[in-house]
Amino acid sequence: MSAPIYNFSAGPAVLPEAVLRTAQQEMLDYKGTGFPVMAMSHRSDTFLSILHHAEQDLRTLLNIPNHYKILFLQGGATTQFNMVAMNLAHGFKTADAVVTGNWSRIAAEQMQRLTDAQIRIAALAGEGSDHQSLPAVADWDIAEDSAFVHFAINETVNGLQYKEVPKLSDGLPPLVCDMSSEILSREFDVNDYGLIYAGAQKNIGPAGATVVIIREDLLERCPDDIPDVFSYRAHVNRNGMHNTPATYPIYMAGLVFRWLLAQGGVKQIEAVNKLKAATLYDAIDGSGGFYRNNIHPDARSKMNVVFQTGDAELDKKFVLEAGLRGLKELKGYKTVGGMRASIYNAMPLAGVEALAEFMRDFQRRYG
Amino acid sequence: MSAPIYNFSAGPAVLPEAVLRTAQQEMLDYKGTGFPVMAMSHRSDTFLSILHHAEQDLRTLLNIPNHYKILFLQGGATTQFNMVAMNLAHGFKTADAVVTGNWSRIAAEQMQRLTDAQIRIAALAGEGSDHQSLPAVADWDIAEDSAFVHFAINETVNGLQYKEVPKLSDGLPPLVCDMSSEILSREFDVNDYGLIYAGAQKNIGPAGATVVIIREDLLERCPDDIPDVFSYRAHVNRNGMHNTPATYPIYMAGLVFRWLLAQGGVKQIEAVNKLKAATLYDAIDGSGGFYRNNIHPDARSKMNVVFQTGDAELDKKFVLEAGLRGLKELKGYKTVGGMRASIYNAMPLAGVEALAEFMRDFQRRYG
Repeated sequence: MSAPIYNFSAGPAVLPEAVLRTAQQEMLDYKGTGFPVMAMSHRSDTFLSILHHAEQDLRTLLNIPNHYKILFLQGGATTQFNMVAMNLAHGFKTADAVVTGNWSRIAAEQMQRLTDAQIRIAALAGEGSDHQSLPAVADWDIAEDSAFVHFAINETVNGLQYKEVPKLSDGLPPLVCDMSSEILSREFDVNDYGLIYAGAQKNIGPAGATVVIIREDLLERCPDDIPDVFSYRAHVNRNGMHNTPATYPIYMAGLVFRWLLAQGGVKQIEAVNKLKAATLYDAIDGSGGFYRNNIHPDARSKMNVVFQTGDAELDKKFVLEAGLRGLKELKGYKTVGGMRASIYNAMPLAGVEALAEFMRDFQRRYG
Repeated sequence: MSAPIYNFSAGPAVLPEAVLRTAQQEMLDYKGTGFPVMAMSHRSDTFLSILHHAEQDLRTLLNIPNHYKILFLQGGATTQFNMVAMNLAHGFKTADAVVTGNWSRIAAEQMQRLTDAQIRIAALAGEGSDHQSLPAVADWDIAEDSAFVHFAINETVNGLQYKEVPKLSDGLPPLVCDMSSEILSREFDVNDYGLIYAGAQKNIGPAGATVVIIREDLLERCPDDIPDVFSYRAHVNRNGMHNTPATYPIYMAGLVFRWLLAQGGVKQIEAVNKLKAATLYDAIDGSGGFYRNNIHPDARSKMNVVFQTGDAELDKKFVLEAGLRGLKELKGYKTVGGMRASIYNAMPLAGVEALAEFMRDFQRRYG
């Protein structure tokens, strides 16, 4: 048997092998129904059951109260920038956005395009700086009468993540969070949020499904005159069947949820994720400066670990040699350079240990 | 071996078995790369090659000239209603919509919601009538200075389809067509169109991918201030990688395109489709009135064949008994009742013959 391949892609990212094997087995005939999942009407009882179980399992995993609705939409997080603004900011003078990196900067910019509300920048970090820390939640300059406060909890490009899951004091606007690159990786209280969204392709499943968790009372804000396909209320009113959903990505997300439950749920996977991140940051910090990551310990991402040697040619060599050993997709984002190891839920500890071992080996040879 | 199952679902619809077998085989390792398609970065060379080949094969199948751009977007045809309006109607006083049934009525209504242009109804058929015919293209009342003329070439619910592929005289606005339920089923000239879109889940592949074919010069109309995720120009400028596309549905669409080429292309599949439709309409017309379809011969759909006995209880029995014989998903749309057989490209002639045989058998027993 050849050496295992470990896929450190930032997304679409690694999926649990057990999930892929189930999908493979069920490809032509889902559980004896005679139908492939891909060829089922989205209104068939079988698909409705797949959708129902995916929703219920997500509810269990994240302990989502009943007054939050769950949707599986299309279009990725990028589409949510505008759906959030169109649905929740109507009639408000302002909405707040926290900008902590590449992704949330784009979010704030794009959100402005389909709303009359002014998008206020409640906090700005990293602009022109070297992205070493995150603004404390207490320092966010929030307007009390804003429609919402939007932020991204983890910035995949620069590898920054809020160590404590942010929450706001009572009386402040609802918190809206892009959790694409960390949902299901650690425990948090859904009650602290007005709306959560996540593109599936990092910590959930394949690209094409977008999870939205919305507090019921916010549905009343959705204006009647926006297109139904962009209206949370229209989707909720039709139980997620306003238009044909991306049925296969939803099925895959459901398989991942079941896999997560079998792993012991979020509490259990969080413990593994802590260990995985510690393994890599220890390898960096223990390298005597050969590998560098200058992010403040309170802001180091447990999902995307960035590091570099300080020598662009050596970084290139690292990525190349690691690839030859089966440690794939370690190249950093184009604007950042260096290396990035994305270690979402489905990356096994063994993969992270193999990378740490390779880091030590590479240093012995080139350090 | 058990009797084959034939899936007459209107969509998500049947897929070629050979395509599903390839997908099954490649599920964990795409062509020896060690990566599952679902777990590949959308920017990886391997996925870019999958996307490139899907695009090239579609270009070959439909003979798409180079000055038309191809996009694989998310959100289905429903999202295209608004993207078309947002991108192409900016600065125009009106845009024209042809309403020929349930779907194009919704399209016209939704298109109005995100544009300042007035959506004019250039033709209206079926409203309050029994949907027996389609307005001739020569009778469409088109405003010459409208932004575009939108229509749906096939109405899946009522089973109506333009017999000749519509085209407009020179000097009239660009024709925009929802081809979701007939794309790749017959030959036509892309040059007659400004923009074509199609949700994949009927004649292309699984739900989650939406094909857009747009004439290059129309990209100049796309306003700068709409969200990038809804801008055709933004997607084209980034070669379809503005945001993470639905990679797996695109891969599946690519497999279907290759299957179609292996069948001999669109010309060949069109001949089979004609035969399939004739088989069912002959069964209906030859039943001495036991089965009914009152649609004008020039408007009968070759993709969705609707019929009924005139007795709702008997229709129910038909659907039930057919299902027990492996002829599945024949129930008509809720507002129409009766039966509907969707016989897209991937439905084999054998399935249609089995249905026609069952129709005769059912009539012998209950006629």
